[in-house]
Amino acid sequence: MTPEEFRRAGHQLIDWIADYRNNLEQRPVRAQIEPGEIRRALPRTPPESPAGAEQLLAELEQVLVPGITQVQHPMHFGWFPSNASLASTLGDIASSGLGCLGISWESCPALTELEEVVCDWLRQLTGLSQNWEGCIQDTASTSCLTALLIARERASDYSESRGGLQAEDKPLIVYTTEEAHSSVIKAALLAGFGRDNLRLVAMDGASRAMSATALARQIEADIAAGSLPCAIVALTGSTGVVAFDPIDQITAIAARHAIWVHVDAAMAGSAMLLPEYRHLWEGVEAADSIAWNPHKWMGTILDCSLFYLRDVQHLVRVMSTNPSYLRSNVDHEVRQYRDWGIPLGRRFRALKIWYHLGIDGIDAIRARLRRDLDNAQWFAQRVSASENWQVLAPVNLQTVCIRHQPDGFEGESLDRHTLAWVNAINQSGAAFMSPAQLDGRWMARVSIGVEATTRAHLEKLWQLIQLHANEVTGESKLPSNS
Amino acid sequence: MTPEEFRRAGHQLIDWIADYRNNLEQRPVRAQIEPGEIRRALPRTPPESPAGAEQLLAELEQVLVPGITQVQHPMHFGWFPSNASLASTLGDIASSGLGCLGISWESCPALTELEEVVCDWLRQLTGLSQNWEGCIQDTASTSCLTALLIARERASDYSESRGGLQAEDKPLIVYTTEEAHSSVIKAALLAGFGRDNLRLVAMDGASRAMSATALARQIEADIAAGSLPCAIVALTGSTGVVAFDPIDQITAIAARHAIWVHVDAAMAGSAMLLPEYRHLWEGVEAADSIAWNPHKWMGTILDCSLFYLRDVQHLVRVMSTNPSYLRSNVDHEVRQYRDWGIPLGRRFRALKIWYHLGIDGIDAIRARLRRDLDNAQWFAQRVSASENWQVLAPVNLQTVCIRHQPDGFEGESLDRHTLAWVNAINQSGAAFMSPAQLDGRWMARVSIGVEATTRAHLEKLWQLIQLHANEVTGESKLPSNS
Repeated sequence: MTPEEFRRAGHQLIDWIADYRNNLEQRPVRAQIEPGEIRRALPRTPPESPAGAEQLLAELEQVLVPGITQVQHPMHFGWFPSNASLASTLGDIASSGLGCLGISWESCPALTELEEVVCDWLRQLTGLSQNWEGCIQDTASTSCLTALLIARERASDYSESRGGLQAEDKPLIVYTTEEAHSSVIKAALLAGFGRDNLRLVAMDGASRAMSATALARQIEADIAAGSLPCAIVALTGSTGVVAFDPIDQITAIAARHAIWVHVDAAMAGSAMLLPEYRHLWEGVEAADSIAWNPHKWMGTILDCSLFYLRDVQHLVRVMSTNPSYLRSNVDHEVRQYRDWGIPLGRRFRALKIWYHLGIDGIDAIRARLRRDLDNAQWFAQRVSASENWQVLAPVNLQTVCIRHQPDGFEGESLDRHTLAWVNAINQSGAAFMSPAQLDGRWMARVSIGVEATTRAHLEKLWQLIQLHANEVTGESKLPSNS
Repeated sequence: MTPEEFRRAGHQLIDWIADYRNNLEQRPVRAQIEPGEIRRALPRTPPESPAGAEQLLAELEQVLVPGITQVQHPMHFGWFPSNASLASTLGDIASSGLGCLGISWESCPALTELEEVVCDWLRQLTGLSQNWEGCIQDTASTSCLTALLIARERASDYSESRGGLQAEDKPLIVYTTEEAHSSVIKAALLAGFGRDNLRLVAMDGASRAMSATALARQIEADIAAGSLPCAIVALTGSTGVVAFDPIDQITAIAARHAIWVHVDAAMAGSAMLLPEYRHLWEGVEAADSIAWNPHKWMGTILDCSLFYLRDVQHLVRVMSTNPSYLRSNVDHEVRQYRDWGIPLGRRFRALKIWYHLGIDGIDAIRARLRRDLDNAQWFAQRVSASENWQVLAPVNLQTVCIRHQPDGFEGESLDRHTLAWVNAINQSGAAFMSPAQLDGRWMARVSIGVEATTRAHLEKLWQLIQLHANEVTGESKLPSNS
């Protein structure tokens, strides 16, 4: 494809994207297709001759788009927001267009230095001190794995240079709670700690925050048993109910035993752009690493996960490589981001943050976050004020966990009821939210925060929810034919 | 930013990208800037008010672009080719524009199913049997780490569910050669094996291919010493001199001891699009996993690394998670790519392969690869036919490793000479190649394969090389003043 052909096709694609984003609300929220439907609509063998950009765009529209769950849709309340602001999308397009290669400072100085700059901007905007340095990872999963690898190596006095983890004589222990995201458990297992050495510390009642007392007790018990406490993954906004672990108490305990503290703020990091919410991670300055994802609520397009460290030394010691073919004369003066994570090659991801802040501006971003927080409070009040409806956990940010419990429903029947009305809404395409379990029982997680979601959409959602829940209640009270 | 504002800014950006790619050849190949220059040109504090897309584009052009080493430039011969074909760039832009979220099949069925389809297309195009299934990773570094994690868990009977690697009683051993990419060593260390348990197997003379005899002997010795051979990372096109390990012999040895064989074909996988080159990985059907990067020579824009497995079961067992908030009713019928690697969230990367094959077409891609292979042979012949010039390793594909050794230069003085003429060319901005070490001595790696590189560019390169090498020879023969 020549630059002139690219120009023509690019203009067409830009128009298509603008129209697509403009008309998103007319599409169903959850993809209305069957498993395998898209795969079957595509040829099984690779195209033998070129098709042209126009035909591909037509297929994109006809075959692929119906298979997209519209997470930018204002009636999307599932998982966590995954905003792809158009300002950051523009930056992502610039990154693609430039076709850079980030394998060393020399391979693209601009890529490295803009990443340094924007990571520092976001440090300032979230109120972290100058003691932190950051980089961009693909996801918080990778950041958490990376943090645990550093913790493992620090605790074992860098066993990677000797017999590795397998030669350690004391078991290294990792602490977190049941509220931890699945990627935290996965990271601990991938890092080789083993499930037996992963402690799910007790939580304090309805807050579902880690109990500092239970943590201290568990650490003492592990030390007494001859183990070595290695890392704590503390949650600033968990996935289930957006719980906040007491970072100040946790870091104080960790300091006594030189335990690495990684703060998983994947979702709630965005809230730290608002000074009035920073009390939620009080004590964070004493942690060792933090991950948060502008690609969630803040709205920088996926993938963009920030990873900050107070002492980068540990990270670089574990991750660095220095093969002859990657050396240059200025290596001692520059940052090599290849030593800050697992992959060698990186895209120019800083551009999307730069565009996002540069075009939308931080004030507008903050105003939108505050709008979502208000909407969550409004919605939670509607739910709690209604008969048979409950809000199940404190609404710390923008996620509201709810359940409808009419008379006679409990245990299994309550679970069936919850899943029935949530699935009915999700299947309808009118709105989407995630069913999730709390203490083994299903609930609905209404995660508010899509860029396009206004109060009117929440009013509509609340009507939809009541309608479907009542309809399903009626149905399940009919005599069963099965 | 509204869709209409995006439309206007998008058109402007597309025009800018088309012009940029069109005029790339007029820019210096290596960025002509000092460390810190770009960082200092950018504000230290985040922008307080929006700037607008037009101003950002002006800054992109004035501040950032001078800091880009132009790997799409036809005079770029460094590292390995990192082609960002405009056809695949278009697919990448579509991916950005759609703003999808790939955390489960349900979150974007099209993302999952197109990835299944294009990975299978590339399987067919590289002549692999139906026994392989694939997915897209960010880089071969991540694929290799993933492969070693699977190997570790399989060999330890899935110790992650018990005491982890740290509870294993026998040391698990990993085998590769000195030619292995730095990411292979890094992966072994991150996976917790430890450097003591990493064997760099002897190579067969000038081919720098792993010696099967040495491998078999080493494995026997390790078993005799009470260790457990776990994984072999075999190289199909190494980074240094593009060496090819004997995959058939290696897999035969591995089979006798149930050792996992990961084939690192990051660069040379593209050559397997050409049936006449597939003898170079003969025996690959008996390997366990393969990584190769369309984002290198083939030209699908970064990041796009294919990872194939013969028995996906092992991968899924190590990587899978199933939290309540990610479940859906059709989970048993669909593929969950989150269980195929480390990150949870993924971009819609399959689109760039789809666009690349759909617009450029496989015939044109193959023709270009053959052109580069011819150019490498032509260039190698020019070098070997010239006095004092040597081609240092077999030119198996498109990389030519060369050295200029005038009378009186050897050892340290030869190293200084090599670095002097290579650096002079790199600094001039007229062309770029990577100095690298071979058996501890510097050489120049001329890696041919940028989409825009024609025979004329190689003629120019050969003139430049001779000019600079001769100039430097003259200088270093002058009496020294220091």
